[in-house]
This record gives sequence, C-alpha cells and structure tokens, in this order.
Amino acid sequence: MAVEPLFQRLCLIGAGLIGGSIARRNQETRALAGEVVVTARSPATRARVRELGFADRVVDSAAEAVQGADAVILCVPVGAYASVMREIAPHLAPGTILSDVGSTKGSVVRDLTPLLPPGVHLVPAHPMAGTEYSGPDAGFATLFDGRYCIITPTEATDPDALEKVREFWRRCGSTVEAMDPLTHDKVVAIVSHLPHLIAFTICGTADDLSEETRESVLKFAASGFRDFTRIAASDVAMWRDVFLNNREAVLEMLARFTEDAHAFGRAIRWGQEEFIVDRIQRGRKIRSGLIERKQA
Amino acid sequence: MAVEPLFQRLCLIGAGLIGGSIARRNQETRALAGEVVVTARSPATRARVRELGFADRVVDSAAEAVQGADAVILCVPVGAYASVMREIAPHLAPGTILSDVGSTKGSVVRDLTPLLPPGVHLVPAHPMAGTEYSGPDAGFATLFDGRYCIITPTEATDPDALEKVREFWRRCGSTVEAMDPLTHDKVVAIVSHLPHLIAFTICGTADDLSEETRESVLKFAASGFRDFTRIAASDVAMWRDVFLNNREAVLEMLARFTEDAHAFGRAIRWGQEEFIVDRIQRGRKIRSGLIERKQA
Repeated sequence: MAVEPLFQRLCLIGAGLIGGSIARRNQETRALAGEVVVTARSPATRARVRELGFADRVVDSAAEAVQGADAVILCVPVGAYASVMREIAPHLAPGTILSDVGSTKGSVVRDLTPLLPPGVHLVPAHPMAGTEYSGPDAGFATLFDGRYCIITPTEATDPDALEKVREFWRRCGSTVEAMDPLTHDKVVAIVSHLPHLIAFTICGTADDLSEETRESVLKFAASGFRDFTRIAASDVAMWRDVFLNNREAVLEMLARFTEDAHAFGRAIRWGQEEFIVDRIQRGRKIRSGLIERKQA
Repeated sequence: MAVEPLFQRLCLIGAGLIGGSIARRNQETRALAGEVVVTARSPATRARVRELGFADRVVDSAAEAVQGADAVILCVPVGAYASVMREIAPHLAPGTILSDVGSTKGSVVRDLTPLLPPGVHLVPAHPMAGTEYSGPDAGFATLFDGRYCIITPTEATDPDALEKVREFWRRCGSTVEAMDPLTHDKVVAIVSHLPHLIAFTICGTADDLSEETRESVLKFAASGFRDFTRIAASDVAMWRDVFLNNREAVLEMLARFTEDAHAFGRAIRWGQEEFIVDRIQRGRKIRSGLIERKQA
C-alpha cells in the first residue's frame, strides 16, 4: 500500500547534491510530496535539472517556485539565505513550513527569523550526509539512508511543523535527532568544519613546497594525505559560507586544535615519548568509540 | 614456469603487518626466497606466527635468525634498529644484504651505518603500504600490490645489492623508486607523518571537550572526522618511533602547516572571502593532480 505523500507541493530552492538527492528520493518513493518544484539561480543548472528530469517542475525564480507550496526547503549555501528569504517572503502562504539543509544553524536562525512572515513555520535541519561531489548530477536517492539528520528547533518552533520535518527525514532514510542551534554548531565545528579546514590547509601547505618536493608529494601521496584530499574536493561556495557562518565555533575548535598540535610538536622536539604515546593511544580510543557506535 | 627464488634464505626480524605480508607473499609465490626465517621479540608473537604458519621457520632470537641468511629485512619499529643491529651484527656473513621497511630513512642510515660489518650491504627501503591494523594477524600477500616502494641508497650502496632489493619489491607487486634519504624524509613528513600527527591530535582535542559535546561528537562523527580516526587507529610503537626519528622534517612541515592554519583562521575571523575561496580551490587542485596520477 502506497504511503500518502507528506506534503502536497514541496519547493526546493537549489538543485545541488542535497536538493537533487531529495528530489530523486521523491521520484523513487513518492512518499515526500505529490509534486516537487525546483528552482536554481543559474540558467545552466535549471537546464541540466530539466534534462536529468528529477523534478516534477523547474521554474526560473525562487519567488515563483514557492507559490502554492506547503513546504519550502532551502538547498543553497547558507550565505545566500538572507537574500533568498527577501525574495520569497512575500510569496509564502501562512501555514507553510520553511526548512533548510545548511551545515550551520545559528546563522540560519539569525538570518531567517527577522524576515519570517506571520504564520510561516521555520524548522531548521541539517542532514549529515554528503560526498565530495556537487551540482545537479551529484545527487542520488539513497544519499540520506542510515545517516543522521539534526533538527534544531527554537522555542518558537511549531510542534506540528517540527513533527512533519522529522517525518520528512525519516522518510528520506535518516535517523532524526533534535539539538539546540548552538550545540549543533559546536559539534559540527569539530566533527566536520575543522577537519575540512585542515584538509584545505594541508593541500595548500603541500602546494607551497618547492617544485621538486611537490612533484614527489603528488606521486607518493600515501593513504594519510589521500584521505585528506578526498575531503578537500568539496564544493567551494558551500564551504566558504560554512566557515563565514560558523565563525565563533570554528575559531574556538581551531584554537584548541592548534594548541594541541603545538604541544605534540614540542613533545617531538624534546623526545617526550610518554606524551606521544598517550596522544596516539587517545586516537585509538576515540576510534574504538566510533566503531562501537557503528560510525566508523 | 616457476621463477627462481631471489634469495636462498630470507630472514625477517619482526612479524607485524609488513613482515607478515612479505612472508605470506613468499608462501604464495615462492619467488622471494627458498626459505623464510622469522623472529619476533615477544614469545606471544612468535607463538602466533607458528600457529598462523606463514613462516618456514620461527626462531627465538634475532642473532639466531640471521645465521646463514643471504638477506635480512628489519620489520620492527625504527627506534629498535640500533639495538637489533648490535645483536645481529656479529652474526651477519659478508655478502649479506641488509634492508628494512621503516618509514624514516635518515635515521636508518644514521643508526645502522656505524654498526655495519665489512662486506654487509645496506639497502634501506620503505614500502608505502599499510592499513590501520597491526600484528602478525594483520598481514596479507597482496598488501604491496600497485603501491610504491622507495629505496634510499647512499653513495656507499653496492649496485648489485641495490638491484636485488629493487627486484624484491617488484616481485612483491610494487613500483620501485629511488630517492636520497633526506628527500624521502621530507616527502613522507608531509604526505604521511603530518596527516597522522593531525589525526592523533584532533582525536585528543575532541576527547578533551566537555562530556556532553564529546558524546555528540562520537554520535555525529561525519565523514570528515571519521576518515581522520581511521588514520588515528594505527600502531602505537611504530608511530612513536616515526615521530621521534623524523623530527626535523615533521617539525618543519608542522610549522608550515600551523602557519597556514592560523592564516585560514584569521581569514575566517575577518571575513576575508577571497582568501578562503583560494584555499578551498587549491585543495581541489591538489586533488585533481592526484586523480590524474591515479593516486586518489
């Protein structure tokens, strides 16, 4: 027996890895929405979405896309939220659920709340899923399967709207957790944003080495460096906006990390075996913790 | 037609991931040596090697193991080389080839050359292969397939011995490159040792967070952090010795990296979009370079 679609008309603003995966999921299951309307800023992306055929309808502007939608999800880099919101706010009907998929949540509350029309329900969400690929070709229907989706309601969030967004992500295959926006931003700063900052940085550090060493670096990239560069291949605009919009938490985690890295370097310089062994063992301990939780 | 074994009697000192993989390779192909004699410091490891049956003979001491061997390969953490060498030197016959598999090469030349008996040929090597597992159970015959092995001859290295070690690693399935020990140590410092230092460090940084945040970190370890912890699961004694024996190069690369990380942090603090975008794009460029070289 087919499940009744959760929404009547779902509008996705942005058709990259995440937006494209939501649309493809609905194309397969028809459990999310009766109709999925997609828009994207660039004409090239819209043309490609039409070719790929994963949306029921592709329209040229965000203002047009949200009309008649009972749910709208922002799937663009978080730095674009305020300007998109200014464009769509006059066209959002009371009762509409407005959600997003951004990797920072404090900034979402900050940018969207002041522009929220009366009766529109904001439920920020962050599906913790991704690959190193981006753009309309990158999405696939099973991207969210078995991954966490964190929802960050505020005190003002409508309980019915919250439950609908929870159900939406469950139907995408995810495990849903709720958290306040500040805690979310700290957690992702250490599990995701700092690792990406490090990966981007070490690639630059390698690139700055003398010509001869750099050639060898590329040639002999062992597993360590290779894993780092996989992370570093991610989308440019998305990551720029993540760093700019989770500034406090990323800077705090970076400061903690560089203090610890300096301490490690000092231990190497002075031959402090015990310190080094302790650090390596803690790495293994954290790893075991992940394996127990089936996250590794 | 079967290939003639390269050596008559090969002695492996140490039976962890690398030693165990060499022995298993020979068990499958019989192309490396007519007989493989293995020793290990701990009685438990020796007992396990006997159980696993990948060596032709397991003996109790390194001094006994090298007797009658025409090739000896040190497969223990690099910090143990000097003491192992003091034990085996009186028992090495002239003409014996002495090699190793350590991740640092300047230290190998430093520790082994002064103790080298006349007529024994030192050919340091570094197979760039590994997994996050260690110990006698971890090895497998195909570990070296398609991976690089770097050989670091000095001016004193015998050309025939060098060619035999090259051929040894080709028969293990590897692509062999030669490099001077200093260049080797700089290259591995950035492609492998620094990434491991970072991985160990960030696990400690996460472990130091307040109880509540740490729990969430383990729960929501996204792909970034997960890849880091895979690296961080590596063998403790091996990595301790790597850091202590490639001190200069690791400290240089760490200094360059932390300077660059600070610059990235500063750009986040002051909202310097162009700088951030440039860093992200350089990451993607290095990544593309790896993909072209089929290293990714």
